[in-house]
Amino acid sequence: MSEGFVVRGLRRVRKLLESPGPLELEGKHLGRVRDLLRECAGGVGGEVSVRQRAALLAETYQHLNDDGRTTFLSTIANDFGPDPESVAKAHADYQAAVGTDRQWTAESALRKAMRSSRLRILTQFNALPQGVKFLVDLRADLLRLLDKDPALRSLDRELESRLSAWFDVGFLELQRITWNSPAALLEKLIQYEAVHEIRSWSDLKNRLDSDRRCYAFFHPRMPMEPLIFVEVALTEHLADNVQALLDEHAPVFDAQRASTAIFYSISNTQPGLRGVSFGNFLLKRVVDDLKRDYPRLTSFATLSPLPTFRRWAESNPEAWAKAFTDSDLAKIKRRLPPELAPVTSAGDLASLLSAHNWAADEQLSSALRSGLTRLAARYLLAARKGDQPYDPVARFHLGNGAHIERLNYLADTSSRGSHQSYGMMVNYVYDPDTIEENVEAFSRSGEIAAATAIRRSARD
Amino acid sequence: MSEGFVVRGLRRVRKLLESPGPLELEGKHLGRVRDLLRECAGGVGGEVSVRQRAALLAETYQHLNDDGRTTFLSTIANDFGPDPESVAKAHADYQAAVGTDRQWTAESALRKAMRSSRLRILTQFNALPQGVKFLVDLRADLLRLLDKDPALRSLDRELESRLSAWFDVGFLELQRITWNSPAALLEKLIQYEAVHEIRSWSDLKNRLDSDRRCYAFFHPRMPMEPLIFVEVALTEHLADNVQALLDEHAPVFDAQRASTAIFYSISNTQPGLRGVSFGNFLLKRVVDDLKRDYPRLTSFATLSPLPTFRRWAESNPEAWAKAFTDSDLAKIKRRLPPELAPVTSAGDLASLLSAHNWAADEQLSSALRSGLTRLAARYLLAARKGDQPYDPVARFHLGNGAHIERLNYLADTSSRGSHQSYGMMVNYVYDPDTIEENVEAFSRSGEIAAATAIRRSARD
Amino acid sequence: MSEGFVVRGLRRVRKLLESPGPLELEGKHLGRVRDLLRECAGGVGGEVSVRQRAALLAETYQHLNDDGRTTFLSTIANDFGPDPESVAKAHADYQAAVGTDRQWTAESALRKAMRSSRLRILTQFNALPQGVKFLVDLRADLLRLLDKDPALRSLDRELESRLSAWFDVGFLELQRITWNSPAALLEKLIQYEAVHEIRSWSDLKNRLDSDRRCYAFFHPRMPMEPLIFVEVALTEHLADNVQALLDEHAPVFDAQRASTAIFYSISNTQPGLRGVSFGNFLLKRVVDDLKRDYPRLTSFATLSPLPTFRRWAESNPEAWAKAFTDSDLAKIKRRLPPELAPVTSAGDLASLLSAHNWAADEQLSSALRSGLTRLAARYLLAARKGDQPYDPVARFHLGNGAHIERLNYLADTSSRGSHQSYGMMVNYVYDPDTIEENVEAFSRSGEIAAATAIRRSARD
Amino acid sequence: MSEGFVVRGLRRVRKLLESPGPLELEGKHLGRVRDLLRECAGGVGGEVSVRQRAALLAETYQHLNDDGRTTFLSTIANDFGPDPESVAKAHADYQAAVGTDRQWTAESALRKAMRSSRLRILTQFNALPQGVKFLVDLRADLLRLLDKDPALRSLDRELESRLSAWFDVGFLELQRITWNSPAALLEKLIQYEAVHEIRSWSDLKNRLDSDRRCYAFFHPRMPMEPLIFVEVALTEHLADNVQALLDEHAPVFDAQRASTAIFYSISNTQPGLRGVSFGNFLLKRVVDDLKRDYPRLTSFATLSPLPTFRRWAESNPEAWAKAFTDSDLAKIKRRLPPELAPVTSAGDLASLLSAHNWAADEQLSSALRSGLTRLAARYLLAARKGDQPYDPVARFHLGNGAHIERLNYLADTSSRGSHQSYGMMVNYVYDPDTIEENVEAFSRSGEIAAATAIRRSARD
Repeated sequence: MSEGFVVRGLRRVRKLLESPGPLELEGKHLGRVRDLLRECAGGVGGEVSVRQRAALLAETYQHLNDDGRTTFLSTIANDFGPDPESVAKAHADYQAAVGTDRQWTAESALRKAMRSSRLRILTQFNALPQGVKFLVDLRADLLRLLDKDPALRSLDRELESRLSAWFDVGFLELQRITWNSPAALLEKLIQYEAVHEIRSWSDLKNRLDSDRRCYAFFHPRMPMEPLIFVEVALTEHLADNVQALLDEHAPVFDAQRASTAIFYSISNTQPGLRGVSFGNFLLKRVVDDLKRDYPRLTSFATLSPLPTFRRWAESNPEAWAKAFTDSDLAKIKRRLPPELAPVTSAGDLASLLSAHNWAADEQLSSALRSGLTRLAARYLLAARKGDQPYDPVARFHLGNGAHIERLNYLADTSSRGSHQSYGMMVNYVYDPDTIEENVEAFSRSGEIAAATAIRRSARD
Repeated sequence: MSEGFVVRGLRRVRKLLESPGPLELEGKHLGRVRDLLRECAGGVGGEVSVRQRAALLAETYQHLNDDGRTTFLSTIANDFGPDPESVAKAHADYQAAVGTDRQWTAESALRKAMRSSRLRILTQFNALPQGVKFLVDLRADLLRLLDKDPALRSLDRELESRLSAWFDVGFLELQRITWNSPAALLEKLIQYEAVHEIRSWSDLKNRLDSDRRCYAFFHPRMPMEPLIFVEVALTEHLADNVQALLDEHAPVFDAQRASTAIFYSISNTQPGLRGVSFGNFLLKRVVDDLKRDYPRLTSFATLSPLPTFRRWAESNPEAWAKAFTDSDLAKIKRRLPPELAPVTSAGDLASLLSAHNWAADEQLSSALRSGLTRLAARYLLAARKGDQPYDPVARFHLGNGAHIERLNYLADTSSRGSHQSYGMMVNYVYDPDTIEENVEAFSRSGEIAAATAIRRSARD
Repeated sequence: MSEGFVVRGLRRVRKLLESPGPLELEGKHLGRVRDLLRECAGGVGGEVSVRQRAALLAETYQHLNDDGRTTFLSTIANDFGPDPESVAKAHADYQAAVGTDRQWTAESALRKAMRSSRLRILTQFNALPQGVKFLVDLRADLLRLLDKDPALRSLDRELESRLSAWFDVGFLELQRITWNSPAALLEKLIQYEAVHEIRSWSDLKNRLDSDRRCYAFFHPRMPMEPLIFVEVALTEHLADNVQALLDEHAPVFDAQRASTAIFYSISNTQPGLRGVSFGNFLLKRVVDDLKRDYPRLTSFATLSPLPTFRRWAESNPEAWAKAFTDSDLAKIKRRLPPELAPVTSAGDLASLLSAHNWAADEQLSSALRSGLTRLAARYLLAARKGDQPYDPVARFHLGNGAHIERLNYLADTSSRGSHQSYGMMVNYVYDPDTIEENVEAFSRSGEIAAATAIRRSARD
Repeated sequence: MSEGFVVRGLRRVRKLLESPGPLELEGKHLGRVRDLLRECAGGVGGEVSVRQRAALLAETYQHLNDDGRTTFLSTIANDFGPDPESVAKAHADYQAAVGTDRQWTAESALRKAMRSSRLRILTQFNALPQGVKFLVDLRADLLRLLDKDPALRSLDRELESRLSAWFDVGFLELQRITWNSPAALLEKLIQYEAVHEIRSWSDLKNRLDSDRRCYAFFHPRMPMEPLIFVEVALTEHLADNVQALLDEHAPVFDAQRASTAIFYSISNTQPGLRGVSFGNFLLKRVVDDLKRDYPRLTSFATLSPLPTFRRWAESNPEAWAKAFTDSDLAKIKRRLPPELAPVTSAGDLASLLSAHNWAADEQLSSALRSGLTRLAARYLLAARKGDQPYDPVARFHLGNGAHIERLNYLADTSSRGSHQSYGMMVNYVYDPDTIEENVEAFSRSGEIAAATAIRRSARD
């Protein structure tokens, strides 16, 4: 096939792009795209046409709607996988060679037979100026569309594996983000913050003040895209309320006197990097950087949400009965405003908390404190999803070696906080002396490290 | 196993490092290293011990001699490969699933069974400060030691594949190198230059003068290590002599008037990246950069060596007979100094050229010109290694779409030039209008693009 | 005087700083400051104590209120000026030497006698980290307090002369400001914008979009402080309305197609640099930069306010009579809403325009158009302040070689626009072919370059 | 005068540049240059022609030979000075105003009358890309040509004063120079090193090794021009031999263990900045930087030459008699090789040391040690030039607050070392506890701080 032909092909597909909105992929357009993919897989052409072809396919892809993208991705997944017969042959040869000197070349040959053209196609996009970001976004599409075609699962796995290689932690750069960072970058923080919404530029400025720190990981090929970022407050005590922490009018603390670093928000920004983990490295490196700048820091802790506490509590009515003592219930009944439905047992509490703005009622919320705290302790220590803690944030921090230090009642009174966890928040503490031990114990036997008070509270 | 134990293990191996020179790997030391590798493979420990362990293994490795390194690498290759039984099981399941919805998860499962722990071990080194360079150098060792153990071959293949992912051209950065570049970097050019030795700092400065350009590819994790670099002269004609080009005392040409860019030296610097190709991208990007700065440039060519011409010619006596006409021979005989052995047939020429400093003898070298040129044309167009051109530089440029434009007699009169190619050099020309066509024709059918004069010369 | 004494002195003055708010300078504090100033002037001490002393004086100064600062500055001005007797002596010597070989050393000696210690004192602050900014702000104080003591005038002159040397245009760096600039810098634009207020971060982002450019001059010692900045819109026509230009919802123009660059806002930011001019260099360099990036640009113009038009018009009632014809007046009367005071002559118009929101009344504003335009033309071409144009913006652009191209009616309908100039704006055009000529003619004889239509309008 | 005329004028002068070598300035060329200078002084033209004119004059100047440059500079000095009559008038007015409110404006007016157009002309060159460097080099010319015309002296003073303002220490940037610095910059060190010649790139690399430091001051407008630089060795003792210090083959010292920083070479690079001092600030800042990186450093010293010791000794024969005791002389006579002229008194020693390579003669040089050391001590402590120490290096370090710690015999055995100071070198020590005291005592009464041994040695 002559180069001229390739270029003519490009031109025909280019017409696709002139149609108005995003579109599906059908008929001869689909045929043409399949031809181009085949050329990609076959490595047809010199560097110039390879790049032109990749650019054209990328442009086409970006103009497709979800149905079109599913078709595009399914085509890659189905048509460019390994050939089962070649695999069978290479496998037979490999098994025959096991134990002989030939084993090793046979192994490489089997690996080669397994190597599909899918990756060859996808990695050609990497030569484009925004190629890495394109592939990360394409993976996000894949994850979203996974149910539409089982073949997409194997494409997803291959792409995940390649992204894991590219986003190996050795390639990531830790950068501090400050009020001197580019506005275009700061704007992305506003957009990506996933835990405690950034409400305005002055809210953001406050989070970058001299008693705050913000760090992000970047990849050299995605220079203005933070991959994950963490916001840190420098204080002299274990923070127990996130609204207090984010108060723009609170006085600025003299960071040189800080004893404690509070990680109060950690946001992953790229859904397309799911399964490629670097959060644990981020915290480790941030701790190193903070220690260098603030030698007096002795304590590294989080102020974390319990994002699925309420969901779990509402579907586990029996847990309420264990958490609330009779005297708790008696106190609650006494303080219950008369217009509300009566509370006869702990089982009624979930609906009470749904219906009423109880947090604003000082009397009532005070009566609920010990029961809710016990419920949360039980949730953190005992609730499971498979053999892992039910709470995703707990999974992350415990897996990194932190321990549960303290539960904070009415620590997040935003509507999100009430909605997710009855306003409850938790401090995980990273204690250098026990991190490695905790990691070991947690990964070996799922053992959860927690302060005695938490442990007792969960047992009561 | 507790963290404490890991650290004690580290301490014991650390003693290895206190012994004076490089050393072998034996007895309990080997046992200890094997334990550490097993921990690497198993992912034991938190981030801190992972990094400590990697650092220790890397240090240990760097202190080993070749025997020790072979043992180290063989241990990884042999002990951490895929398990043939698991592979067999996953393969049977895969073949059974072909054609069903289960095929795709079965494919991923087979791929997973094939995934060895070898890479898991190696990539942990990447978290070290100089980790990428360490792995590139380790691959260079592997290539050197390949014959010592067949198992190393499969380790090499896995590492090559990972390095290919990491050194994907999308991650490389083109940088211009000038006299304003760091001395530590320039020093590396002196050390790495593989074609025309850089004799001194003033030789180097001359190659970075205003009528010269030098470019290199860098990887973000190896910031002061050029991966490949090219030296370019800006001229107004196709250069025909490399000594003239490198003459420090030649007047500086006004680059704004240049019509022609001569790529006169291209050096790969990292033996550990063999098989990971980026040379073609380098030239493409350099051409783009040059065009931007010098819009008048119309011609992009090389002045290249023929590194294996002489080796080929000496083992192909029949080629001399075809290249030298009777009248050539007659002329040579006439001009032969009397003290030399007589030349009776073309077959005697190879030994004549070995024995005598003929290039300095104007009469004799003039008599040899047409025959040697024809011999070189034949070598470039007809000599083969498998289905590829015999000459490695020709393979590179023809594969990138250049054509052979001109042979230059007595173009490199250095001892290396005489030794490799009787002083012959060649201009390959990159003509944007024909590059893609040439790439296609060369890759499809091995067709070699050459100017008519060359083609005729080879046919005569 | 021993160093110990100096340091003890510092300590005593340091107490000043412990008093609560800004304060006056009196009694022994003043005595102590005077001592320190005397040490500055005398160059007492090594580098360490010089720097400590400067830091202490700067801190003291910054804690003073206006009365205190006046005392501080007056002390420098009065006590450290040249000594009239020495000047007299040096002058006599100089005059005696005129015409002889001794003239030149006598000249230097006179210059030396004139050199006061004031500058020696002030420039010691320059060694402080923010020293340059400190002196620029101190000059702003000086200008503000000038009337409090006639001696301040000569201190101001000396400081101005030194700042002129330091802010010589050769030391200024032109930087483009974009949405990728540090947020801390962009925040200063919001704060410093003096012509068309920046209302929000999204307003600012719009002014930095792809069809806009923003440039500023910086001094190497004040890296995050723009000294002057200009905002430019890239368009295809001469802009005639600033609200349209600043509309965040207007579509983005494809800058590559732009024929015209509109300078729609130029702000000086440092009152302390009054008299140190660099605005003309800014425009010149911006034009050069724009031409490089957009070779199709052919026209460079402003959309400028007439900041003192209304003030002038209100104090020149006779000008209205010349500008408004009888038929203008008749039309205005016809369209005058009945509830308003009647207009009998042009002299009534100024108060009409003050009392009524006439711009919103389409009928009435259309009737006023030609008269007001004529009035503005006359103002620009004929109104004078000394031998210069009355309008400060006109002085600036005409002095730089621009000509008046067009008056735009209802071009700035903001309350500021109405208040300053009845909503009128003007386009000055920088035409490379006539700039130098215009500069010459304007500086030689005050001749104002203007388009024929303007000229005719002013004459009518 | 129209702009056209200016440009025509430029063209005529431009012809000057076409003549081959550097040239004189005569006849109509001189007339034309004078016209251009007059336009500069008068501020004729807009920014474009100002810059063109400056560029042309600069080019012209650079093509002139010394006679031409003298004429050029004399023209500026003579024709553009202040007008004595205006000065007389302003002076009379000033004296009359002294003591009244008018004094201050009268002072400014006198200052204005003194302001010559010379500086106005010179500073226009600052707008050129290399303008600052051009003026610094022009000042170097001025200093060299000072004797040719007395008028040049006043031009020199005015330029020095402006350069002092521009090169105020607040504007200088301290940079560390390492082997990672640009080669073009390192090349300048080789060229500028004024104390101990840098013999090769490997000599230079050795001076930038991990146990060395090199720092320079830069001006923002001369980015690749070090103004002054210092080379430092990190050691564990007070160095006593410069050849040992510069030995490329000496083992590298572990800088983390260093107790002592030896400043062994300080070079001023710009003769045109004579009188603009920044050497003292350099040392201060370097000490600060070293302390930050090496907290264990306790001692900061130099190993310095005595550049005029021999010159002084040869013209002070009586000093020898005091320095050499009879027993010294006896010892010398005993060890004198028989072929040499006999030594009868100390007065013969100077010529002995001139004639004979005595340093290589272990016996003889040992006999000379105590006398020569006493002679050097006397030289440092007692020899005077005016009221300052005779030795220029001593003036510098003593003025900065160092004290003389130790004399080192045969410490510089290079031919330069022998030639300047009989191989003697001296350690000045900067002791933070006494620096300020020393500065005070030295500047007040010329008191020289020295260790007791030195002091005793000088007295003996």
